Amino acid sequence: MTADITAAKAALAHLDLVDAETPVRAASRDFFWYSPVLKARLDHVTADFVVRPRTEAEVIEVLKACYQHDVPVTTRGAGTGNYGQAMPFEGGCVLHLNRMTEVREIAPGRVVVEPGCLLKDLDAACGETGQEIRMFSSTWATATIGGFIAGGSGGVGSVTWGSLRDLGNIIRLRVVTMEAEPRVLDFTGEELARVSHAYGTNGIITEIEMPLAPAYDWVDIFVASEDFGAAMALADDLANEDGLLIKLASVYEAPTAHAYFQRVRPHASESDHLVGLMVAPHSMDGFVTFLARRPGVRMIYRSDDHNWPRGPGPVFEYGWNHTTLRALKVDPSITYLQVRYGFPDHRALVEEIRDTFPGECIQHLEAIRAHGKVGFAGLTLVKFSTEERLDEIIRIHEEKGAMVFNPHRYTLEEGGRQTVDDVQLAFKREADPKGLLNPGKMIAWDDPDWAYERMYAYPRMQAAE
Amino acid sequence: MTADITAAKAALAHLDLVDAETPVRAASRDFFWYSPVLKARLDHVTADFVVRPRTEAEVIEVLKACYQHDVPVTTRGAGTGNYGQAMPFEGGCVLHLNRMTEVREIAPGRVVVEPGCLLKDLDAACGETGQEIRMFSSTWATATIGGFIAGGSGGVGSVTWGSLRDLGNIIRLRVVTMEAEPRVLDFTGEELARVSHAYGTNGIITEIEMPLAPAYDWVDIFVASEDFGAAMALADDLANEDGLLIKLASVYEAPTAHAYFQRVRPHASESDHLVGLMVAPHSMDGFVTFLARRPGVRMIYRSDDHNWPRGPGPVFEYGWNHTTLRALKVDPSITYLQVRYGFPDHRALVEEIRDTFPGECIQHLEAIRAHGKVGFAGLTLVKFSTEERLDEIIRIHEEKGAMVFNPHRYTLEEGGRQTVDDVQLAFKREADPKGLLNPGKMIAWDDPDWAYERMYAYPRMQAAE
Ligand SMILES: Cc1cc2nc3c(=O)[nH]c(=O)nc-3n(C[C@H](O)[C@H](O)[C@H](O)COP(=O)(O)OP(=O)(O)OC[C@H]3O[C@@H](n4cnc5c(N)ncnc54)[C@H](O)[C@@H]3O)c2cc1C
Ligand SMILES: Cc1cc2nc3c(=O)[nH]c(=O)nc-3n(C[C@H](O)[C@H](O)[C@H](O)COP(=O)(O)OP(=O)(O)OC[C@H]3O[C@@H](n4cnc5c(N)ncnc54)[C@H](O)[C@@H]3O)c2cc1C
Repeated sequence: MTADITAAKAALAHLDLVDAETPVRAASRDFFWYSPVLKARLDHVTADFVVRPRTEAEVIEVLKACYQHDVPVTTRGAGTGNYGQAMPFEGGCVLHLNRMTEVREIAPGRVVVEPGCLLKDLDAACGETGQEIRMFSSTWATATIGGFIAGGSGGVGSVTWGSLRDLGNIIRLRVVTMEAEPRVLDFTGEELARVSHAYGTNGIITEIEMPLAPAYDWVDIFVASEDFGAAMALADDLANEDGLLIKLASVYEAPTAHAYFQRVRPHASESDHLVGLMVAPHSMDGFVTFLARRPGVRMIYRSDDHNWPRGPGPVFEYGWNHTTLRALKVDPSITYLQVRYGFPDHRALVEEIRDTFPGECIQHLEAIRAHGKVGFAGLTLVKFSTEERLDEIIRIHEEKGAMVFNPHRYTLEEGGRQTVDDVQLAFKREADPKGLLNPGKMIAWDDPDWAYERMYAYPRMQAAE
Repeated sequence: MTADITAAKAALAHLDLVDAETPVRAASRDFFWYSPVLKARLDHVTADFVVRPRTEAEVIEVLKACYQHDVPVTTRGAGTGNYGQAMPFEGGCVLHLNRMTEVREIAPGRVVVEPGCLLKDLDAACGETGQEIRMFSSTWATATIGGFIAGGSGGVGSVTWGSLRDLGNIIRLRVVTMEAEPRVLDFTGEELARVSHAYGTNGIITEIEMPLAPAYDWVDIFVASEDFGAAMALADDLANEDGLLIKLASVYEAPTAHAYFQRVRPHASESDHLVGLMVAPHSMDGFVTFLARRPGVRMIYRSDDHNWPRGPGPVFEYGWNHTTLRALKVDPSITYLQVRYGFPDHRALVEEIRDTFPGECIQHLEAIRAHGKVGFAGLTLVKFSTEERLDEIIRIHEEKGAMVFNPHRYTLEEGGRQTVDDVQLAFKREADPKGLLNPGKMIAWDDPDWAYERMYAYPRMQAAE
């Protein structure tokens, strides 16, 4: 099976197709370079051409032509993923959805939208009805809703609503298959798991129905404390205050605020741990009451009432994976981990792990609900030395009982629970029989007997020049 | 200190004042008769006159005149309380607030309203902005917002938002004191605890600011199961599904549905346990998926799609204390308890207690959030035999670790945690120096050394004729 790039390009020439090296290379990259491990392996990857469909009918045309000519297709929203998810390991076609941006319908509690709509544009549209999406990636300003669903997991809002994968957080997905005659399927209920967080390996999402929450003028807040335990407890306890509505509760161990958050630096010392919060305006009175009950913490910023000469910008752009970005910019030797500290032992486990890697790991926690209980997602900052040490740090985390979603791997399995997702695999068999969709991302498809003893290396990866 | 009723009436004659026996007696009663214990003690209680102020200024007039003439004042919303809270034990004046019903301001996330507004009218007004109150008593159709705050605790919506007393569930209360010159005070933050759930013993609430939630066309649902554990787990697990938005999850042990819910009876057998739910319409797909995963449960009713010849009416009017009402109507020997089964042992504790009183107690549970975790409020149906046995049943509950809020007592302390509320007491000293507001409801005021060894009997209680 050899890709006939020339034939596919000819068949699609009437569409918005680009094959010039520079723009194609730009559209073939994502934020894989957060990981030194992935940077060493993926930096050279590039597609042969990029197509930007305007409609579902054009998506179907692309898939049909690429199917016929055996050309791999890697879908791209905005390319803000961190694991090379949107990178075309075998070259071929990048299907760039940034022209499919229509918000089709807004009703109380729900919205129907095309996949290429930016999260911020989606919120702007929903805002006209006093609504907003329940949760968003901290790349709200640049990422697409389709990329969030196919490649993301949760984020700002997950402290209330849990993760994208939780029942009810996606209502319906419309999906086009990669076959001789692509089918268009509407998925709800159990079917949603087939394509959510599947990296576009088994179908292209062309329409999305999501639940909405009420939109508020969230108050952005920073609280500082010299006591890490107090900062962590503040975030955890606040997320457990049933009457106080929040959208974000992040904890940054010192010296993150002082060392990496330039606008915060004048207001926080090197030993200050920081808590970043988004609180509903009508919960502010209650929040202030809550805060006054806690010794050893001080509110250094609230967006509705402050005298900072230079405001910090949205607090959520300090949280989730923006923390890593800010740290990286200052110290390029930094990388990160994705850890889960599950209720009820989450605080103790964080403390234990914190004690284990002094100077090497800096705790960054996001309060998040799972199964109805508040725990922490950790996006720990790590001073990178070697790949071996990074693997060792992960192993120690796991030994202590923290689950790690390894962000230094490019396959669905290694970035997840290291097990085959049978639902996704079964649907790939049906929807992508030639295995052309985003190749190299699903080990179960390529190598069913893989034993996860070392990092998977996709055998058909483009050769570095 | 003897009340000069005649002088007070004369001073207030220009207001809407009634002193005819029948209407005064009607405005002097609440739903105390749910309790055989209270029925035996309070049935005769009646005021001397009733005043219905139209404005805060008139409230002040009433309080001033009654203060001057040493006349007790008992405030009344709609008189749907269950513990004689709104009953004038020493006679005097009933201050009936059912004319102060103005909804003053609605903004995103908040409403300002007068206390006499019915919960249903408040929701109707908020509905025009797509909003509704976070939680309401199941007496939504008849009770006032002021009575709910001064006499209630939570209800429909507490599965998401916790209890009224939780930080953030009341924003501001405006209160008039009972002094020679009544003061008007605005309370927020910690001050709210002074007068919330204080039965009007230390100030009259004349304006209320409450948080709002988005309004949805909630889908009413009944699910039946032959397995009590499965029914209980369904309610608990659903309340822990972060992505599924619900407003109510009630569990009714068999034979409640068959024996007491007449419209449900044709659809549920004697051995069917029932779960009553309110689910947001945009969470219905996810809910149906959730339900299909659970063996041994069957949805027998959903309000958006059913073929019952006679609909059951709002499902919330089967929950909270409406369950007791429905049971009482069929079997007058039934009374009830108010129990708390706290996370994490709530299910096991319910099972244990259920095994302890076969045939005598029928479990009725409401899933409710406390400190961020889902547990149960039990409004257990009890076949009443004697007061002694009722006390014994309560004692056994407490011994097993369930907290009981005794609904067969008329004082704040005995209906609560049997301890003095220092905040409320301190404010009463300040705001009601003569002790004229709703006398007999606060033991700490009347008898600071009371030891809670037996039921408190207010010494100045009106004599039965
Ligand atoms: C600074 C920073 C912060 C971040 N914070 C978060 C966070 O808080 N939470 C979070 O979950 N992630 C986070 N991420 C990761 C990423 O930004 C998000 O997951 C984002 O939502 C991805 O959207 P995108 O449009 O950039 O998708 P892309 O990166 O373009 O695509 C992501 C994956 O989805 C596939 N895909 C895209 N569109 C479709 C489609 N229509 N059909 C099928 N497959 C498709 C792609 O092939 C790819 O595999 C962060 C990344 C950065 C760099
Ligand atoms: C069938 C049934 C179901 C119920 N379900 C629930 C439930 O789900 N949740 C719940 O919490 N309760 C419940 N209750 C109890 C009661 O209905 C509620 O608490 C209700 O909100 C009380 O409102 P009301 O207007 O009837 O108050 P009232 O009974 O008139 O007053 C209650 C108390 O508040 C005081 N008060 C009233 N207004 C003011 C004011 N403006 N300022 C100061 N004090 C004031 C009164 O003096 C009295 O002590 C139920 C009762 C019944 C009969």
